[in-house]
Amino acid sequence: MPTGPPGRSTIRGVEHGLDVGTLFLAFASALVGAKVFGELAERLGQPAVLGELAVGVVLGPSVLGLVPLGDAVLELAEIGVALLLFEVGLETDLEELGRVGAPALAVALAGMLLPFSGGYAVARALGHPPLAATFVGAALTATSIGITARVLSELDVLATREGQIILGAAVVDDVLGLVVLAVVSKVAGGGTLDLATVGKSTGLAIGFLVAAVVLGVPLGRRLIHYVGKARVRGVLGAMSFAFALLVAWLARAAESAPIVGAFAAGAALARTNRRHDIDEAIKPVVDVFAPVFFVYVGAEVDVRRLDPSAAENRPALLLGLLLAAIGFAGKFVAGFASWGKVRRAFVGAGMVPRGEVGLIFASVGLSTRALDPPTFVSVLVAVFLTTFVAPPLLKVLRPPAAFGRTPGPDGERRRAAGP
Amino acid sequence: MPTGPPGRSTIRGVEHGLDVGTLFLAFASALVGAKVFGELAERLGQPAVLGELAVGVVLGPSVLGLVPLGDAVLELAEIGVALLLFEVGLETDLEELGRVGAPALAVALAGMLLPFSGGYAVARALGHPPLAATFVGAALTATSIGITARVLSELDVLATREGQIILGAAVVDDVLGLVVLAVVSKVAGGGTLDLATVGKSTGLAIGFLVAAVVLGVPLGRRLIHYVGKARVRGVLGAMSFAFALLVAWLARAAESAPIVGAFAAGAALARTNRRHDIDEAIKPVVDVFAPVFFVYVGAEVDVRRLDPSAAENRPALLLGLLLAAIGFAGKFVAGFASWGKVRRAFVGAGMVPRGEVGLIFASVGLSTRALDPPTFVSVLVAVFLTTFVAPPLLKVLRPPAAFGRTPGPDGERRRAAGP
Repeated sequence: MPTGPPGRSTIRGVEHGLDVGTLFLAFASALVGAKVFGELAERLGQPAVLGELAVGVVLGPSVLGLVPLGDAVLELAEIGVALLLFEVGLETDLEELGRVGAPALAVALAGMLLPFSGGYAVARALGHPPLAATFVGAALTATSIGITARVLSELDVLATREGQIILGAAVVDDVLGLVVLAVVSKVAGGGTLDLATVGKSTGLAIGFLVAAVVLGVPLGRRLIHYVGKARVRGVLGAMSFAFALLVAWLARAAESAPIVGAFAAGAALARTNRRHDIDEAIKPVVDVFAPVFFVYVGAEVDVRRLDPSAAENRPALLLGLLLAAIGFAGKFVAGFASWGKVRRAFVGAGMVPRGEVGLIFASVGLSTRALDPPTFVSVLVAVFLTTFVAPPLLKVLRPPAAFGRTPGPDGERRRAAGP
Repeated sequence: MPTGPPGRSTIRGVEHGLDVGTLFLAFASALVGAKVFGELAERLGQPAVLGELAVGVVLGPSVLGLVPLGDAVLELAEIGVALLLFEVGLETDLEELGRVGAPALAVALAGMLLPFSGGYAVARALGHPPLAATFVGAALTATSIGITARVLSELDVLATREGQIILGAAVVDDVLGLVVLAVVSKVAGGGTLDLATVGKSTGLAIGFLVAAVVLGVPLGRRLIHYVGKARVRGVLGAMSFAFALLVAWLARAAESAPIVGAFAAGAALARTNRRHDIDEAIKPVVDVFAPVFFVYVGAEVDVRRLDPSAAENRPALLLGLLLAAIGFAGKFVAGFASWGKVRRAFVGAGMVPRGEVGLIFASVGLSTRALDPPTFVSVLVAVFLTTFVAPPLLKVLRPPAAFGRTPGPDGERRRAAGP
């Protein structure tokens, strides 16, 4: 077997399910595609992340098949999104986030109630059973903190009041969304809905976030202190990254999401005196792994199911369009629940993308049989339409305070400049 | 199922075999362990890579079990070793490598013939069949370019004549080793040994390396030219990394090893005018992923099989010690096949570690049933002993020309300094 052993693995010749060639090709095509399409999107005046999502559709199994939907690529995507949220945390000022806590909470709650009740009502009106309608509504409640944070970073508005409100509301959304998911999944699995379960899930999720930040700040400072004494190469970046992974793992153990933990780890390390150095050390790693996440999300779109010329696709597509409209309107209006000197439409637009969190709801609904496959497609359509429409909208609505930052070195700029 | 969906995946709630929590914990413990033990090794006057291998043994399934031997971690290790070889390629001067071509070839050939014939003779003398003896001998021929390059980089002698000879000989070893593996595997699988197969395998492997470098240099220059015009963030690092992954994938398609391709990609990009910028962009990524590889190699050691108080382990351990001695002596003596103004003992010591390539031989031998489990353990013992003995030996024998480099910024130094 002359082709077998060298191709399977550099380390072991035995069969272990991973084809290193396929993985490397997928990783490379995701990177090249993300950067080329990201560049195209920028030249068309759109955020780069839109190009990365679009190239994911093209590279995914339903078109070119270069990026397979499997554990190997998913793992890189998971690392990518955790790193991205860690970096967002690093760029977050906890005091500023605290100052916008009240309006962020108002935006988050309005942004959960409006889409949920709208989605539930439409699904019920079209004859879906209560459980399916609950999943449909729940899938519309989440905000994709990954996509939102990425667009805010590209537009250089993370530090603005609008950016902080959106970020705070998205974190609340993620935390509450996971509580809703846990409760709804329990009901779908045949359990009963009691106040004790809801209370425990809510307490764990919120308690974790508070504990992570409160304990993370002194722990992070101690870590940075010891790292400063190290002699071996690359300790600061590696240890900061390990810290993010550990808090992400703890988040999962506390029934929250790993990305929430990664964000908390970044926010804690942001309060050390090495914040800038950590950001410098972690940025190149984010640049390599985060695109894989967005390409993967795009690759989950099966273009065949979206063909309106096939009659069997039409009811699901129509419901999808309705849900997208409800999901868009509900989140956009929720932005006006904020107050203070902010561009409220921008806040609303920032809450629109559903991304990966909406996909979790849809997938769990399908796997617990609460959603039938056509309704699953409807939810996917709503998730993707809201995800694709938000970045250009945010770009149009960008608050004026964001301008004036200088481009980075080497011709690589953090936000689009005029042509 | 309140704990299920949030823990499984950030992206999909469905079952897909990957537990993101386990992966993050394994990645984090590998990183923390590698840096802490690497630091300890440095303070004891040893290369950091020795600490990373040792902590792998501790974190692996046979002791703590924090780093499982499975696809998820293996994938990160594969990326790590490819990145490492890409970085080694970036730091390689092809012209200098060409100047040491003849002595490197002599060292490589002597370093394959001596251990092979010694290992074969001992195995035959102890009553092993010819096929098993062939695998035992073949497993002793390879040099771990990953471990060697890492130690040379830590000692800051990659650019010395000794470093270039070792690197050149290790590349030749890897290329020829994969040819030997392909041919031996074919025979073990019931095929016949004919000159056409040997010729084809040899031609493909060597042809690939030459083609990769010859075509890679102009292609790399063109790539860097376009990358310089990009607006989006992090393009240089991401595209260089993608280039490495693509050439690694091509190497596999050409029946060579991905790490050989990654090395060739780095050597090609080293001849562009952005060599330094690429190195800066890729270094933080290497710092995070390369340790996973060394921890993984360490984790493959099952300490229970190494217990000499268990009588059933002793014959295999004794054969292992014999093979380690032969493997050590054969490679060390081969260093004296070099010429010119070089410290030949250093060259010999640099060829000693077997690492991942020896493990490929042993694993393929086991999976094709050419090796029985005890003999497999013997080969593992020889592989690990030669791997562990080489770094401190290299440190002792370091040629004097290596001194005088200044430590890096932030207290992170690329080589050990006195305490």
